[in-house]
Amino acid sequence: MAVAIIGGTGDEGFGLAVRLGRSGVEVVIGSRAHEKGEAAARKARDIAGDDAPISGTSNDVAAAGADVVLVTVPFAGQAEIYRSIRDHLRPNAVVCDATSPLATVVGRPAWQVVTPWEGSAAEQAKAILPSTVRMVSGFHTISSEALHAFDAPLEGDVLLCGSDAEAKAEIGGLVERMPNLRWVDAGPLSMARVVERLTALMISVNRAYGTRDAGIRMVGRDSWGRPPGRA
Amino acid sequence: MAVAIIGGTGDEGFGLAVRLGRSGVEVVIGSRAHEKGEAAARKARDIAGDDAPISGTSNDVAAAGADVVLVTVPFAGQAEIYRSIRDHLRPNAVVCDATSPLATVVGRPAWQVVTPWEGSAAEQAKAILPSTVRMVSGFHTISSEALHAFDAPLEGDVLLCGSDAEAKAEIGGLVERMPNLRWVDAGPLSMARVVERLTALMISVNRAYGTRDAGIRMVGRDSWGRPPGRA
Repeated sequence: MAVAIIGGTGDEGFGLAVRLGRSGVEVVIGSRAHEKGEAAARKARDIAGDDAPISGTSNDVAAAGADVVLVTVPFAGQAEIYRSIRDHLRPNAVVCDATSPLATVVGRPAWQVVTPWEGSAAEQAKAILPSTVRMVSGFHTISSEALHAFDAPLEGDVLLCGSDAEAKAEIGGLVERMPNLRWVDAGPLSMARVVERLTALMISVNRAYGTRDAGIRMVGRDSWGRPPGRA
Repeated sequence: MAVAIIGGTGDEGFGLAVRLGRSGVEVVIGSRAHEKGEAAARKARDIAGDDAPISGTSNDVAAAGADVVLVTVPFAGQAEIYRSIRDHLRPNAVVCDATSPLATVVGRPAWQVVTPWEGSAAEQAKAILPSTVRMVSGFHTISSEALHAFDAPLEGDVLLCGSDAEAKAEIGGLVERMPNLRWVDAGPLSMARVVERLTALMISVNRAYGTRDAGIRMVGRDSWGRPPGRA
């Protein structure tokens, strides 16, 4: 199963590409330009190991070749990127959006957010894509700083929102390929209205403490992952 | 230092009253009626121990007698309660609001929220109170179920928002009186726009997993509490 990472040359996407590729997941890094995607893949293999199955290409080719697509782009360019890949996505692709609607998009601090018309960036993405695409939202509390500390295991939990339980479990399966990382089912896609904002909260906490990789971990259960009764 | 708990007969407030009183904090439970406050205090002492310094009275008397006031009321009655205590609060009181603007207030599910005019329930409270009051927002991710499991230590972190660092540290000091509980400085009061919504997220997670006490714990630092450089 190939995973395309749209915006895979950015900090968050690149970090995920290295960590997934290192775990043996076939990763295709997408970028606006084919050459940039290829260059990022070479750099990722330098870190993950030469035999890591990481390749690079343009966003549309990456999207066309994968059943699972992670989209890790800044909110300012999110709609344009989705419009550029929408006709290339496989009809039943699982698309996981990692966008946070940070107020930086309007020149305000990163610990503030704006509210997209549809309620969340993930729902905005869903509004752009064909209705057959299986939309998930996640990865908002994993900082790119933590992702790029490649020698350290990740510590926090990935909260996934989406109305398709199987799609969430597929993205959850990728999460579990990264050592120590767990996923939590946060509910339907509209819960992204709460979860996406956690990026701003992490940035606010980092600002208060001088940290760079604050994250959250769910308590109340020993393990999370796929909820019981939904096997 | 006496702590008033306005709405201390409700699940969240009562749980905090027992746990704080058991740790030796002088607690005054406030209720709409003096007799109900007294009855709740008797019940709290039955659990916390006869020598626990927990008393009960009306909301306005409780508010008048304390430098630190916790307000644990449902969003539907929040504004009315604040209007009823505003003229009784000490001018420089630290007031910690624990309200979550859950959509139950408009007959919708508890994993959904509404957006108060001022951006958050805490900011709505601030708009009602005199400007000298030192407003803090917190306790949104500590479930009343977990609070009421009186034999078990609490597991999660309390995220505190507020623009007055000393006021946050005072509430943080109360948090630390409860064994195993930590507090995290989440930033200015406006961050309540993100943090208050976490109650809805916890409810959504509980709904997915059949749990009743999901909470969150911050990762990225061994200890939290008062941020460095703000001693």
